Amino acid sequence: MKHLLTTNTLSLEEVRTILEDAQAFSEGAVWKPEKQTFVANLFFEPSTRTKCSFEVAERKLGLEVVPFEVNASSVLKGETLYDTIRTLQSVGVEAVVIRHSIDSYFAELEEQIQIPILNAGDGCGHHPTQSLLDLLTIQQEFGRFYGLKVAIIGDIRHSRVARSNANVLKRLGAEIVFSGPKEWFDDSLLEHGRYEEIEQAIVTSDVVMLLRIQHERHEQEGQEGKAVYHQKFGLTLEREQRMKAGSIIMHPAPVNRDVEIADSLVECERSRIFKQMENGVYVRMAVLKRALQQGGKANVNDHQKWSVAY
Amino acid sequence: MKHLLTTNTLSLEEVRTILEDAQAFSEGAVWKPEKQTFVANLFFEPSTRTKCSFEVAERKLGLEVVPFEVNASSVLKGETLYDTIRTLQSVGVEAVVIRHSIDSYFAELEEQIQIPILNAGDGCGHHPTQSLLDLLTIQQEFGRFYGLKVAIIGDIRHSRVARSNANVLKRLGAEIVFSGPKEWFDDSLLEHGRYEEIEQAIVTSDVVMLLRIQHERHEQEGQEGKAVYHQKFGLTLEREQRMKAGSIIMHPAPVNRDVEIADSLVECERSRIFKQMENGVYVRMAVLKRALQQGGKANVNDHQKWSVAY
Amino acid sequence: MKHLLTTNTLSLEEVRTILEDAQAFSEGAVWKPEKQTFVANLFFEPSTRTKCSFEVAERKLGLEVVPFEVNASSVLKGETLYDTIRTLQSVGVEAVVIRHSIDSYFAELEEQIQIPILNAGDGCGHHPTQSLLDLLTIQQEFGRFYGLKVAIIGDIRHSRVARSNANVLKRLGAEIVFSGPKEWFDDSLLEHGRYEEIEQAIVTSDVVMLLRIQHERHEQEGQEGKAVYHQKFGLTLEREQRMKAGSIIMHPAPVNRDVEIADSLVECERSRIFKQMENGVYVRMAVLKRALQQGGKANVNDHQKWSVAY
Repeated sequence: MKHLLTTNTLSLEEVRTILEDAQAFSEGAVWKPEKQTFVANLFFEPSTRTKCSFEVAERKLGLEVVPFEVNASSVLKGETLYDTIRTLQSVGVEAVVIRHSIDSYFAELEEQIQIPILNAGDGCGHHPTQSLLDLLTIQQEFGRFYGLKVAIIGDIRHSRVARSNANVLKRLGAEIVFSGPKEWFDDSLLEHGRYEEIEQAIVTSDVVMLLRIQHERHEQEGQEGKAVYHQKFGLTLEREQRMKAGSIIMHPAPVNRDVEIADSLVECERSRIFKQMENGVYVRMAVLKRALQQGGKANVNDHQKWSVAY
Repeated sequence: MKHLLTTNTLSLEEVRTILEDAQAFSEGAVWKPEKQTFVANLFFEPSTRTKCSFEVAERKLGLEVVPFEVNASSVLKGETLYDTIRTLQSVGVEAVVIRHSIDSYFAELEEQIQIPILNAGDGCGHHPTQSLLDLLTIQQEFGRFYGLKVAIIGDIRHSRVARSNANVLKRLGAEIVFSGPKEWFDDSLLEHGRYEEIEQAIVTSDVVMLLRIQHERHEQEGQEGKAVYHQKFGLTLEREQRMKAGSIIMHPAPVNRDVEIADSLVECERSRIFKQMENGVYVRMAVLKRALQQGGKANVNDHQKWSVAY
Repeated sequence: MKHLLTTNTLSLEEVRTILEDAQAFSEGAVWKPEKQTFVANLFFEPSTRTKCSFEVAERKLGLEVVPFEVNASSVLKGETLYDTIRTLQSVGVEAVVIRHSIDSYFAELEEQIQIPILNAGDGCGHHPTQSLLDLLTIQQEFGRFYGLKVAIIGDIRHSRVARSNANVLKRLGAEIVFSGPKEWFDDSLLEHGRYEEIEQAIVTSDVVMLLRIQHERHEQEGQEGKAVYHQKFGLTLEREQRMKAGSIIMHPAPVNRDVEIADSLVECERSRIFKQMENGVYVRMAVLKRALQQGGKANVNDHQKWSVAY
């Protein structure tokens, strides 16, 4: 069975296969199950890009997406996540994509559920497809990971992306530094990389990866606080000027314009922010293919043939 | 015109035809309208399994499901149910599936609306597709209804399922008994079956059909109340041991684990709870086929041919 | 690039082409993009008929509709409309349909966004597809606009429809009069037509176009206020008797029955209210075709061929 829960538990071999498939999809490869295949997206937290990205990926694979609105579901009657997924499995759903506010919501489900779970973000924990799309974007740019310096800057403590990325990038041979407000640094991240002052990180890194300030998780600091953050830790016009030649800007979005990054830099030449979103579709196609191809006990793979056309 | 509003108004002939079609669908039969056909699901109450089940059934028939979210609709501007359905009909919708909190919400609509209405639950009234999927599950198990003893246990007064099932099962020749808290028994049910003590019902019945305790309709009794209910009227591990050889457990779900039924019995060998959900898809395919095939005045059946392949 | 933002900015040539295409669709014409094409509907205000109508139109063109629920999106995290649309574009969406409560929400987006925006209503501003479906309905009835007298009656000040329709109908050669409560008349409308007393408007017009009393925008007047409105300015049974031979009744819906129009007149012989809704689908197919055919810079038109079959 091929859940996709964290990047930490993916071998480098698996990561490379996913990136290869994603790259093929970005170049127009087509893969579709031969029979009608149902999936469902369970988003217990708001999302535009991840949800829409999965939707588009699913439709490009010819999958049937069963609409699931949390606020109109039996979750309101207290139904557990296990029973909800088990129900979807019973009506014929063959894979579920889940975003949930609880860290490692999948810890128990992993063994109990017989259809693949694709984690679309769990609390402050993991967000594997975000990491994978970041990897694809870096690979497209540099053709390698080994020896690259990646600076992850901002709200590291609350970021799913920081943890997922730090782990896998380091395993792939990149050097990681963390920057931003020191009080948001988390000692548990030290195993992946050291803290570095913003001015140094900016000028020495190949990839400047900005994280979103999660206003909904912090005290509301108002406009003044935002301007102060921007000056101290944001990618200002001035800092961008000092970035290394050939280096790129990344951000998982949604962007707080003029906070993490100056408004006019969001779509500047160095920015790969919208390229990341585009790559998200291809990465999600790859992990859906992986999940459905290998399937679970309940999966119909036995009497199913796949058509692949490149 | 073929609305599906209650099982009470279905003849046994009609019930048998629906079960036959549903069984065929469960074995892989395919039926699709030849032209693009639109339907809409109007759920004015939360639901996971009924809504998802209809969605899957509709997609398996190749239907186009027009999304309808009550909370984003003109119902918020005070539009009546008649005008909402009439609007959907005008834009080309050929059948509507409706769940609504008002008992017999369809009483007036039945004559006014020219496209089939499929009732997916009305207040404490009816839930015909739930009854039909229960029938299919029983028929698959025993091959007959005549002479079977069916115990319906729990919150009978508020249950759509109790009424729908009692009526049709009795007509099909089964013996019905009701059990659970006596104060939840309703004299209007006496025409279908008598009240029986839980211990006797459990050991003598071929089908033990548990109903959901609708916490949202009762006073909140807290954990203690739930444990007491479980001991007095729930299917405990001990009671399951005393069930008749070959008898089965059914529950319309969502299940309150360790209230109506012990947690570990939900997926035990006797349990047909998830089989019921699977059968729900086939039954809904059958009633949708019935509705669309016979259509209404406004339906395009006249210049439409159907393809049926078994 | 072919946004559709207002009818005011459409040339008569463009209006005629859209009506021609819409009429062809109403007669069964088929047009589909050859490749899988994604669109999204962003409704920031409640709607049944406009949203469902666009959905049906999109499916009839074979488009993939990416579900977008405002209340489950990153708009909740403060994402701007620009960033939301830009995100959708990045994941592959090729056109967006938007309803928003802010007048001219598209003013800045128009230049920034590289995929077509189809305006499905902006505040008290415009509602071009409603105007176009009104035009199609009138054209089907009379075969011309020149010389027709059209009375627009009711809540003119808050009506998107009044402004859009007045402008384009006048350009097409129709005579416009406005009626209803004088205090709801708006001097800015004088350029399109004069105010006329209800009794005169009713007996002399070819088209009696009633507008919805927007209770959600006015003080709640209660049942009494509604009855008074109906007697003074509504289409009563008595007034309908005095309408000109061959004249028709229109209303953008949802209708307040027995306020703007007597309950039993909603589906009377003169009424084209549900015909309007049906025509909405064809008009939306036509503007979607127009948008996708001409596309934007980001559009894949270059390597795309279209199949048209009439």
